[in-house]
Amino acid sequence: MSTHPLEELIHPRSIAVIGASTSGRGGGFLSPLVQQGFKGALYPVNPKYSEVLGLKAYARVRDIPGPVDYVISSIPAAGVLELIADCAEKGVKIIHLFTARFSETGRKDAAELEQEILRQAKKANIRLIGPNCLGLYYPAEGIAFNEGMPKESGAVGLASQSGQAVGEITGFASQRGIYFSKAISYGNAIDFNECDYLDYFAQDPETKLILMYIEGVRDGPRFLNSLRAAATVKPVVILKGGRGEAGTRATASHTASLAGSREIWNTVVNQAGAVTAGDTEELVDIALAFNFLPEIHRRNVGVVGGSGGSSVMAADLCEEAGLNVIPLPDVIRQELKKKGNAIWDWIGNPADFSISMGDESSAEEVTKLMAAHPDFDFLITFVSGPWRRDPESFSLEKHLERYSLNDVKNKPLVMVFQDRPRYSINADEMAEYDRIVEGMEAKFIQDGYPMYPNIKRAASAVSKMIGYYEKKG
Amino acid sequence: MSTHPLEELIHPRSIAVIGASTSGRGGGFLSPLVQQGFKGALYPVNPKYSEVLGLKAYARVRDIPGPVDYVISSIPAAGVLELIADCAEKGVKIIHLFTARFSETGRKDAAELEQEILRQAKKANIRLIGPNCLGLYYPAEGIAFNEGMPKESGAVGLASQSGQAVGEITGFASQRGIYFSKAISYGNAIDFNECDYLDYFAQDPETKLILMYIEGVRDGPRFLNSLRAAATVKPVVILKGGRGEAGTRATASHTASLAGSREIWNTVVNQAGAVTAGDTEELVDIALAFNFLPEIHRRNVGVVGGSGGSSVMAADLCEEAGLNVIPLPDVIRQELKKKGNAIWDWIGNPADFSISMGDESSAEEVTKLMAAHPDFDFLITFVSGPWRRDPESFSLEKHLERYSLNDVKNKPLVMVFQDRPRYSINADEMAEYDRIVEGMEAKFIQDGYPMYPNIKRAASAVSKMIGYYEKKG
Repeated sequence: MSTHPLEELIHPRSIAVIGASTSGRGGGFLSPLVQQGFKGALYPVNPKYSEVLGLKAYARVRDIPGPVDYVISSIPAAGVLELIADCAEKGVKIIHLFTARFSETGRKDAAELEQEILRQAKKANIRLIGPNCLGLYYPAEGIAFNEGMPKESGAVGLASQSGQAVGEITGFASQRGIYFSKAISYGNAIDFNECDYLDYFAQDPETKLILMYIEGVRDGPRFLNSLRAAATVKPVVILKGGRGEAGTRATASHTASLAGSREIWNTVVNQAGAVTAGDTEELVDIALAFNFLPEIHRRNVGVVGGSGGSSVMAADLCEEAGLNVIPLPDVIRQELKKKGNAIWDWIGNPADFSISMGDESSAEEVTKLMAAHPDFDFLITFVSGPWRRDPESFSLEKHLERYSLNDVKNKPLVMVFQDRPRYSINADEMAEYDRIVEGMEAKFIQDGYPMYPNIKRAASAVSKMIGYYEKKG
Repeated sequence: MSTHPLEELIHPRSIAVIGASTSGRGGGFLSPLVQQGFKGALYPVNPKYSEVLGLKAYARVRDIPGPVDYVISSIPAAGVLELIADCAEKGVKIIHLFTARFSETGRKDAAELEQEILRQAKKANIRLIGPNCLGLYYPAEGIAFNEGMPKESGAVGLASQSGQAVGEITGFASQRGIYFSKAISYGNAIDFNECDYLDYFAQDPETKLILMYIEGVRDGPRFLNSLRAAATVKPVVILKGGRGEAGTRATASHTASLAGSREIWNTVVNQAGAVTAGDTEELVDIALAFNFLPEIHRRNVGVVGGSGGSSVMAADLCEEAGLNVIPLPDVIRQELKKKGNAIWDWIGNPADFSISMGDESSAEEVTKLMAAHPDFDFLITFVSGPWRRDPESFSLEKHLERYSLNDVKNKPLVMVFQDRPRYSINADEMAEYDRIVEGMEAKFIQDGYPMYPNIKRAASAVSKMIGYYEKKG
């Protein structure tokens, strides 16, 4: 059981949305809660309305009849001190300040107001998320900050200084089969900060993998301790915003963070046993590998199903990502020869079938032989949708059958699902093509395969995942 | 006018397709020619048929009544020597050998047959493309090797040792507004080789930009000379297949090429003044920059329209790609202040508008001011489709108006068109969203903007393009 101070704060009996309205972001905070099915009481607070989204609205927090545990503020900065006084009276435990225009503006008065807010909150024993952030997404509790955020829970925890990044990461990750235990956008982090969130996720039994987007670290030594401790118990992948000169300037005006140098950061994170990502796309790519694959400790990869040039480039890109594309073991060639495969002495690793002249079965055969061979630590296989030259292939069932990989369950398998140039698809069949591709992707996700749009991203993500387990030992 | 020996060979009066059939690749070579509207005579050759695709078929080349300039062979390797004898009698000038299973199989007899084919062709004064390749795509002449290849001509020439790569590159490039003068898949290159194609494109007035996918170079010094000469007159971007150990093994079994080390290759290409790409995606990305942008000689970039974290990461990724994200010149801030912009002192470069609370006009204003300022060499602007929180924005016209960038015609402009997480789009509005995004993309391509799906790829491609002009001076 979690004993972290955040734990009880994120299971509120009720949430009040200050500045709730029928339009704009205030309404925006209320409607995702309604949509996600938050089980507790929801209170819109706005003196201008008697009801918002069908819920009775209150002029002030103190007017709310029942207890209020959790408050979301989307009012302007000038009103926040009064709000805190109100919340103190009401016994509120935590305020998420979407409210912005504080220290990130670079203005002295705004930064002073921010500090005064922190002082008053502390005095009232109220904890703060933010300011200048989108707050909490906790699907199991029905808490979300964007309409349409997935209701499914998963095992990935995300703490991000940017709300835009949380939207992007949770959005694109869920399209690829990853769901979240909790995600927190924490902005200027004047109270709970990056270390608190990291500590929280490290001990959270609902979280098996920690993702972070960080612009600035307030307390270097504490962060390093937290990171090392977290990375010992579960994988931590960190995307740093503000790695260079211009990025550091940008973090100041985004979340008033002091960023540092790229090299120092990478060294520190790697030494702590965590993994670095360069952008949100890579963060999700790496998360996919951790989420779907078992632990992999060595780097020998077997690549199957590319064709001609793509096979050659697959070898290059895997090596450049730090994987070992070992030669095809001779025993596999002998097996192929025994089975009467005409190109047994020609097939290698990557196993290219462009010369097989339509002998589809050989790709499957080689996959199975590679899966059974102890030299391969994992496999990457190319997958693709229907092809206009083969109109009878326009069947989802046939495609699922073609990539039926039940026999390779004993070896970690990564899929590269390659897009086709549109011209190669008959315009009349485009909708059907899209339907089949969607069906294939849904099935592969359901079967637990990580899918990447190209081999470069696949190889790089898996290589970073292996790096984590190598260091962990 | 082109005086290269290839020039007259690729304007044939007639093409014979040997092994043409109603199914498979033989038919495949005939139907793209029909579909592209090849103006000369087309002769299917196959003793098994009296007609293919409505065209009278002949048993042998010598049975064809009219002259035959160009022959495409899709018969098995064993029949090629006889075909050459036949073609010699008929006065054929060039044979494209799709036929494979020669030296790339690693078998001695196959390699010997390949050499014998070259000897016989030379004796008969017949030039060869291939073997083991898809041959010529020349839209202006109505020559193509895949159904559906674009009929539009452009200014980009592509020579590729892999046919799969030509399909991918021409396909994805055309979706982004790039069209080709000619593209050649040349496989094992026993006669015309990489140097010939490079020399050809260097002097071809229809070609302004040369792209190459190369697995092996037969004659290093000659290639270096050709490359240096070509890069002096027009940009050359080279993607090398077989850069490492496993890739080199793979090139041997793909096109029987001897690849070399990554480092030597990169050094040689860079010293020759050409540009390197790591995969087909990057090749197309770089081509896009050359194709749509004017020459850019310095690296100062202005970035506009990102939001929060994406703005911070934009700064990082631009710097890591070798661009200078200079601070926003003070004179621009003063201009903004004069115009009454409330966050004039907060806006920087990247210009983040997440704090502007819906003041859309400021992004446009800053873009114009950056465009007018001499310190910026080019701009990158974020573009995106409709957003569910703003249902009235579901209009293509409004979106085109929003990104009406006529005022920045004086400064090179790169677009980053970001995908949205699907959950952020109302399911009912998904088709409408897709329609608007397609309309926007079509318009931006028509207006001549290079578009990238993320800033990392945009920054890297433009940086490589600038590198070419820096070296060229």
